[in-house]
Amino acid sequence: MSLDKIFNAESVAIIGASRNLTKRGYQAIKILLEEEFEGAIYPVNPKEKRILGLRCYPDVDSIPDSVDVALVTTPAATVPDILEACGRKGIAGVVAIAGGFGETGAKGIELETRLLETARNNNVRLVGPNTSGMMNLKSNLNLVGLKDAPRGDIALISQSGNMALSLITEAKIKSQRGFSYYVGVGNEVDIKFHEYLRFFKNDPETAAILMYVEGMRQGREFLQEAYKTTRQKPVILLKSGRSATGRKAAGSHTGAMAGISEVASTTFARAGICVVDNADELFSVAETLSCLPPIKNDRIAILADGGGHATIAADLLTDLGLTIPELTEHTQNNLRKILPPAATVRNPVDVAGGTDAEPTLFADCARIILNDPHVGGLLLVGLFGGYGIRFAESLALQEEDAAHQMGKLVVSRKKPIVVHSLYSYEKPHSLHLLRYYNIPVYDSIDVACRCIGALGEYGRYLGAYRAKTNFILNPEHKRKSAGVKIITGALEDGRDSLLETEGLELLALHGAMALFKDKSGRPVVKPHQSFVEKTGNNGNGYLATSEEEAAGFFRKIGKPVAMKVVSPDIIHKSDVKGVRLDIRTEEDVRGAFAAIMRNSKNYVPDADIRGILVSPMAEPGLEVIIGTKTDEQFGPIIMYGLGGIMVEILHDVAFRVVPISRRSAKKMIEETKSFPILRGVRGQAPRDRKAIENLLLICSEVMEAYPEIREMDLNPVIVHGQGLSIVDVRILLHASR
Amino acid sequence: MSLDKIFNAESVAIIGASRNLTKRGYQAIKILLEEEFEGAIYPVNPKEKRILGLRCYPDVDSIPDSVDVALVTTPAATVPDILEACGRKGIAGVVAIAGGFGETGAKGIELETRLLETARNNNVRLVGPNTSGMMNLKSNLNLVGLKDAPRGDIALISQSGNMALSLITEAKIKSQRGFSYYVGVGNEVDIKFHEYLRFFKNDPETAAILMYVEGMRQGREFLQEAYKTTRQKPVILLKSGRSATGRKAAGSHTGAMAGISEVASTTFARAGICVVDNADELFSVAETLSCLPPIKNDRIAILADGGGHATIAADLLTDLGLTIPELTEHTQNNLRKILPPAATVRNPVDVAGGTDAEPTLFADCARIILNDPHVGGLLLVGLFGGYGIRFAESLALQEEDAAHQMGKLVVSRKKPIVVHSLYSYEKPHSLHLLRYYNIPVYDSIDVACRCIGALGEYGRYLGAYRAKTNFILNPEHKRKSAGVKIITGALEDGRDSLLETEGLELLALHGAMALFKDKSGRPVVKPHQSFVEKTGNNGNGYLATSEEEAAGFFRKIGKPVAMKVVSPDIIHKSDVKGVRLDIRTEEDVRGAFAAIMRNSKNYVPDADIRGILVSPMAEPGLEVIIGTKTDEQFGPIIMYGLGGIMVEILHDVAFRVVPISRRSAKKMIEETKSFPILRGVRGQAPRDRKAIENLLLICSEVMEAYPEIREMDLNPVIVHGQGLSIVDVRILLHASR
Repeated sequence: MSLDKIFNAESVAIIGASRNLTKRGYQAIKILLEEEFEGAIYPVNPKEKRILGLRCYPDVDSIPDSVDVALVTTPAATVPDILEACGRKGIAGVVAIAGGFGETGAKGIELETRLLETARNNNVRLVGPNTSGMMNLKSNLNLVGLKDAPRGDIALISQSGNMALSLITEAKIKSQRGFSYYVGVGNEVDIKFHEYLRFFKNDPETAAILMYVEGMRQGREFLQEAYKTTRQKPVILLKSGRSATGRKAAGSHTGAMAGISEVASTTFARAGICVVDNADELFSVAETLSCLPPIKNDRIAILADGGGHATIAADLLTDLGLTIPELTEHTQNNLRKILPPAATVRNPVDVAGGTDAEPTLFADCARIILNDPHVGGLLLVGLFGGYGIRFAESLALQEEDAAHQMGKLVVSRKKPIVVHSLYSYEKPHSLHLLRYYNIPVYDSIDVACRCIGALGEYGRYLGAYRAKTNFILNPEHKRKSAGVKIITGALEDGRDSLLETEGLELLALHGAMALFKDKSGRPVVKPHQSFVEKTGNNGNGYLATSEEEAAGFFRKIGKPVAMKVVSPDIIHKSDVKGVRLDIRTEEDVRGAFAAIMRNSKNYVPDADIRGILVSPMAEPGLEVIIGTKTDEQFGPIIMYGLGGIMVEILHDVAFRVVPISRRSAKKMIEETKSFPILRGVRGQAPRDRKAIENLLLICSEVMEAYPEIREMDLNPVIVHGQGLSIVDVRILLHASR
Repeated sequence: MSLDKIFNAESVAIIGASRNLTKRGYQAIKILLEEEFEGAIYPVNPKEKRILGLRCYPDVDSIPDSVDVALVTTPAATVPDILEACGRKGIAGVVAIAGGFGETGAKGIELETRLLETARNNNVRLVGPNTSGMMNLKSNLNLVGLKDAPRGDIALISQSGNMALSLITEAKIKSQRGFSYYVGVGNEVDIKFHEYLRFFKNDPETAAILMYVEGMRQGREFLQEAYKTTRQKPVILLKSGRSATGRKAAGSHTGAMAGISEVASTTFARAGICVVDNADELFSVAETLSCLPPIKNDRIAILADGGGHATIAADLLTDLGLTIPELTEHTQNNLRKILPPAATVRNPVDVAGGTDAEPTLFADCARIILNDPHVGGLLLVGLFGGYGIRFAESLALQEEDAAHQMGKLVVSRKKPIVVHSLYSYEKPHSLHLLRYYNIPVYDSIDVACRCIGALGEYGRYLGAYRAKTNFILNPEHKRKSAGVKIITGALEDGRDSLLETEGLELLALHGAMALFKDKSGRPVVKPHQSFVEKTGNNGNGYLATSEEEAAGFFRKIGKPVAMKVVSPDIIHKSDVKGVRLDIRTEEDVRGAFAAIMRNSKNYVPDADIRGILVSPMAEPGLEVIIGTKTDEQFGPIIMYGLGGIMVEILHDVAFRVVPISRRSAKKMIEETKSFPILRGVRGQAPRDRKAIENLLLICSEVMEAYPEIREMDLNPVIVHGQGLSIVDVRILLHASR
């Protein structure tokens, strides 16, 4: 059901209405009356007749007209029954304020489940619970205890009432812009982040969407929606719960599961969302993105009236990955004509006192700079707005003239201007004018840089190739019956992991073995053919159940082998001395077989030993790791990195949410810092990137196909000049119910 | 000469005094009069009789009384002559406003040199030039065109007038604290950063020193002074010019040389300076450090009235490296007694509405938390100060009560409290009270976290072992005549680099060869003894001038060798095919000798070939790199990192300013991310850290001893389980004059 009837409700019931001034049930009615909500208000409380002049009803059933939305201010335990009553009455949505649900532990989670079932069964949608409420600032439907929120075109979705209060307060004090809607998602029990996002995406009066998130319950659906949304309007997001303590705090706040921090920020960013790290920047970045065109070419000019701010701005924009291009000769000459000799006409441009007596020069400089084809946007830093205050009042009029001119430049040149001004607090008229023309003004140079940087980032995103946008998992289309059989078999065995041979078989089923063939179809690692004999599938070795079989396989391949015990009871094979490497004679193969059997039985007396996997020693090459995990927000994710110390010590890995496209697989490989090693450094030959790409795609497919898999680790995979060898596979399953 | 007479001047001459309202020579006098400077003011201008009611003198000589300081507002070219006149008059200091010196290029640098000479010859100290001026806020000696700067106990040293203006404006608007002095260092031609620092260190009315730096001309002297200063009072510093464009901007602003960015920030931090990255945080951090005790144990508690702010604060403090400890059972129980059941009493503590009707509870919570022995300081985040505004006016009185109580807690518990409040802008009296008690209040949660983080950082510094503080280089004590001979010889040859054999000899002179012996004195790499035969020094190979010699050396050591051409005309030996590795037979040694000679002569026909260095192949081991550079701010610096990709691709290196202590050498090795590899990972044996430490100390000594050396690279050095091998040495000299 669309959320339209909730957000644009024309009638509202206040369940838990009160005459007590300190109660939310009183304040809610008072604010609706004060702010002149356009629709009907129905207080509900069996003990009262009238509240604030309005007739009070004993229950929702007795309200004579239809009701669109109900604000429920009563305690947690009462909410399910109220939901049911609302359903009977045909109320579309309920906003539940009470806390005391999932964030408090097991009992609360139980209550939450009941709540959701009741909502579903009664065809009512639920905002919250544990929410500060919601607002439609166009119709003055204010279901939050907060007055005078500024109206505008930014929609605010927040998982914290205090953060919403922070952002609204900041907007009121520092800006001339404001909000179209606000919703507090609370515990996100029924309506999820992605549904709110979709509603605001489709709302014509919302120009940008601002989000504070602690943890999403359906991150994958959100991504799906975000990809569509960011093509149409900017989404700005702060994700908290990055640290261990932060995650704990989020959990006891809204019961949110914060997920893996690196995964969240890179995943959101790849969906075109502007991810903001500091609360200080959040509203300002949204303001800028809501009212200015994105920068198409990453290139920004800085105009300053002092060296310090110019230098700081140059550092900050560089940190943000933007380019500060040289201006053309033509531009520099034109600037030279109007500025004093001491001025710097390269980028950053420093007027060096040139504007002291004539601040209209700022507009002239801005015009010359924005005419430069190398420049995509302009950052003005320093004292603009303060010339009339600091030097002579008459200069204020010149500043106003300059503001008018710059405002028109933004429109005619289709290039944004962002302003930092020391004098923002003094509220000079010139800065008011700039804001009128959609030129945002910040008292913080850090924030101003971040804002124009966000325009560059968003422009880059919109201009770039778009990765696939399908995040909804589709196991049915990918599952293979032989794969299901392997997994079901293990689960029926009571195991929560696959044997190494089973893991290899599963990968083979999805095409992993093709990797071992060169372009002409010739196998690069030969012994797969022999594995076929045993298992009926392609494979990477031979599961020998006797010395004789092991020796026979060794004779056949005529190469050094590795031998590993295969047993559902032995996960850490090295710990039981169940692994022998680089065995080069038939005699040693026989000896190793006996020793591994002996050791395994010594360590785990009753172990169910399926045999010993005999594999050819992998040719030398570069070790990489491919792993997968299940993230709390996004479900299955896949990880890639160069092996050994790169992962263990330097944590140099790339993540993606499953499923991945070929392009994503390629990008993952390229974005690790250690990528040059793979490409070949210091005279070493390059490695087979394509083979890794293929293996990543296969692992992604396997994760998608079998939701039973909890975690998968291919470690190490040895990459050769051509092809690769999977040396070890570990696949863990969700414990069967 | 002390700067006391300048900063505490009792009389001031304004040279370039004017009646023109837009001129600095008018504004300067006006502001001195308006702000009631306690001393005498002497306008100087041959064309005027009186300015603003004061008698005007044609020149300084005609002023009847003694003058302490002169503000010079006339153009650059006039300043040297004025300096001379000031010297004759016995004026202690001159503040020169004019730009147009070093920042403009060669001619300006020339003028600067003249300026400095004139100052020295006439016994006058010079502030600037290209400075916005200076202020003593106690005596109202305001030589800056800026009114109403707030008075306080922070001294401000800035290399940008606009940044000073930013900071002063911020202090005025957001805080109740202010400045004792301000000085704009400008081009730092005469008086240097460290001299200002020393003056403020000794000033009893300055509690903290706040600095904005683009580039220091004598960074080494500054460090020396900083180590002493930070023991006594906090120094807070923002260094700009980190990026390439930023460096350029700094250069055209004050002619500053910004130096190597990573070196600057880590070096300042190691001297106990609080290095701030964002301009937004600069004043606030200084304010906090100026008025609150440092946190001794890194452990901070968070008290919040909403989950969002608690979560964000936890993330930020974790990012800053602080600990958010669990509270004791006792503390948690005490909190539980006064807070509602929904509250979280772990750290972060979330009152969850518990303070809505009773904000004095904040003080009770603060008391309980600060009594916890695990807690070193308290961060209060959220709505404090706004209860009276948001809910009921009467609550404001309770907030004031809480403010009084918290203020006294800071004193009695000797633990700091820092406050974030959404309502800072509304200026409620309770927040005013907090500030009165030296509890800073910030509207930004990011800034509040950074501030309490700085108290933790400073406390950690003060509590930790202090490294050596001698930064003044002492070449005479370290030079060896044999070393001087090697370098002089090369310079007289017209070379700007040493031969590899010379480089090895130089290192040997300073003890490098000792590294090749084990604890019992037995050489770990044998062939040094043979190098002794040839050079009279220990060494790492044999410089053969004939096939016969090469073959003889090979027979003697009986091990595979490497052979490299040694010629002042061939720096990149591999490019001319002048290197052969792993030669294993006498025949091949002879062949290689001939081939290297042939190749070298082919590529560089007239090359002066000194011979071919025959060295035993280094045993396998771990590659590391030791390098040195000359930094623009700090002079010689030394760098260490694991070799190969770690340095080339991941830039995982540690820097120190030369000379280093043994402890520094140890720390350098430990602070690289890849350190665990050296210590031995994945079953590999640990490497000889002590040998690297020794080699770092030797390289540091060599750099200190011979200022002629511009750059030195030992790449690679192969580290064994015991001892190491220097495989290649490259030493570059400053071109001889």
